[in-house]
Amino acid sequence: MKEKEFINIIKNVLQSDYIGDDCAYLKDLGIVVSQDSLVEDVHFKKNLISPFQLGYKSVMVNISDICASGAKPKYLTISLSLPNDINSDFVKEFYEGAKKACNPHPSPLPKGEGENIKIVGGDITSADKIYVSVCAIGDAKGRNISSRKNAKEGYKVVASGLHGSSGAGLKLLLEGKTEPQKFIKAHLEPQAQVEFGSKAGLNIKTTYAMMDTSDGLMDALSTIANESGVLLEIDFDKIPHDKDLEQFNTWQDMILFGGEDYGLVAVVPQEFDAGTQIGVAKKGLGVDLNIDGKTIHFSKQDVEDKIFNHFN
Amino acid sequence: MKEKEFINIIKNVLQSDYIGDDCAYLKDLGIVVSQDSLVEDVHFKKNLISPFQLGYKSVMVNISDICASGAKPKYLTISLSLPNDINSDFVKEFYEGAKKACNPHPSPLPKGEGENIKIVGGDITSADKIYVSVCAIGDAKGRNISSRKNAKEGYKVVASGLHGSSGAGLKLLLEGKTEPQKFIKAHLEPQAQVEFGSKAGLNIKTTYAMMDTSDGLMDALSTIANESGVLLEIDFDKIPHDKDLEQFNTWQDMILFGGEDYGLVAVVPQEFDAGTQIGVAKKGLGVDLNIDGKTIHFSKQDVEDKIFNHFN
Repeated sequence: MKEKEFINIIKNVLQSDYIGDDCAYLKDLGIVVSQDSLVEDVHFKKNLISPFQLGYKSVMVNISDICASGAKPKYLTISLSLPNDINSDFVKEFYEGAKKACNPHPSPLPKGEGENIKIVGGDITSADKIYVSVCAIGDAKGRNISSRKNAKEGYKVVASGLHGSSGAGLKLLLEGKTEPQKFIKAHLEPQAQVEFGSKAGLNIKTTYAMMDTSDGLMDALSTIANESGVLLEIDFDKIPHDKDLEQFNTWQDMILFGGEDYGLVAVVPQEFDAGTQIGVAKKGLGVDLNIDGKTIHFSKQDVEDKIFNHFN
Repeated sequence: MKEKEFINIIKNVLQSDYIGDDCAYLKDLGIVVSQDSLVEDVHFKKNLISPFQLGYKSVMVNISDICASGAKPKYLTISLSLPNDINSDFVKEFYEGAKKACNPHPSPLPKGEGENIKIVGGDITSADKIYVSVCAIGDAKGRNISSRKNAKEGYKVVASGLHGSSGAGLKLLLEGKTEPQKFIKAHLEPQAQVEFGSKAGLNIKTTYAMMDTSDGLMDALSTIANESGVLLEIDFDKIPHDKDLEQFNTWQDMILFGGEDYGLVAVVPQEFDAGTQIGVAKKGLGVDLNIDGKTIHFSKQDVEDKIFNHFN
């Protein structure tokens, strides 16, 4: 668990209150900010993703972080490092994909949410492998910003987006398959939950917790539960997913641990009316998963042991 | 000149007014934002820079971009990618350096400028080589933000910081030398011109041009001249530099083209009183350099041909 160890070192050195959520909320400026990177052979294989899709996905994963805060995604900068043999077509297609992701077109959107997100800067340099780092800025004005520490007993757990599709798509890609196309598309061209995130930020009047499921639904649930000091009781059968997913032997794992769906999961007051309720927040700690007629408890460590870690 | 070619492609795809300056000025949010990366074996050699210095420099080059806009540097996110053999000491020292750079301590600073800049987020992943990408955010409230397009005939050209020291330091490092230490320090631990940038942003009441000299003083002068459509006449003898630099055979080139000094150069109304005047803006295009009793004209192409380009 070197990644977690490194993050703890960073927290110790910086003594910063900001480190922890998908976004940092900069109250004095009225914005949230997030930065995430995609590294060749760590987060993607060059032969399995097109330049367009890489540009699209790099942007969308950062838009997703802004959505998870409840803020309105507005601006992006992109740092792109490329091997010397990359040609100008790659750069053109990458930015066409990035631009496409900036116009998310979910419908219907809250008023004023339909405008494009803008790419406003960054840099381009050479490197041995492809490396993309995107910084996203969201407008927090008029929004109630989430924190993963804010789940409370009595709140309900709601999820938005389809869970497990991206994991299925990755499995198909790695096996050289091209069907069902919808799963591959879910992996290569995910859609951030702009509408759901906006509804939470605009409509919830008290504190609440929200995260995206970039590292998997169970990771998000476990993180919120442990950071907030509550037990989240989840009914597996209620988790929104594509029914065709059930053709895969490991479909339950895909839903719980697959990651990269860029859905949102939120622990919110009962009166909030959006997404699909998948559980409740109770006294206790961790996640109780009701699945196949049993209840399985997941401690923080149980979940960490299951999750892909970049430094393992 | 692949880097310039790529930037033109990006401009064409995005059709964005924002791309061009060191920072993007997001007027509706009252902020400026900048993102710059340092890549192992492109921007630095692992054996020539300590983890502390790498953290320090990665942050300082981005603070410098904010200073070049006239805004107040406030927040940073850092994306750090590291080979698997890197240990936790590296991470600790890197962030200690980054934190040091956030407390620039120039003196005297305008009121309210002395507070620390804060690192508020980012991510950490593995990679084949060390890759650092930093996003910096500056507060534009109460500031007049510069643009490299804003130089005007009749303005004066002023420079802040010592020019050429970083280039000398790099030469010493590459030759395995350790003295004079001040040049090596100028290369590894540069100091952004926080005070000068603030004075410009706070005191200039009309449009003006400012850039940092990350890619060299002549690059900054030529860019401002050509983007603004003016001729900058520069007196080489007036450019502030360390006198000991003159012991190097190539000291004039170091001052003009060395880069990485993170000084500031600005083309400002006559009444602005900070920095050292090194020239004037006149009718024409490009840079006229008065040096050794001669005047040498540099067109945009002349300068580009001289400058280190990452994709060459």
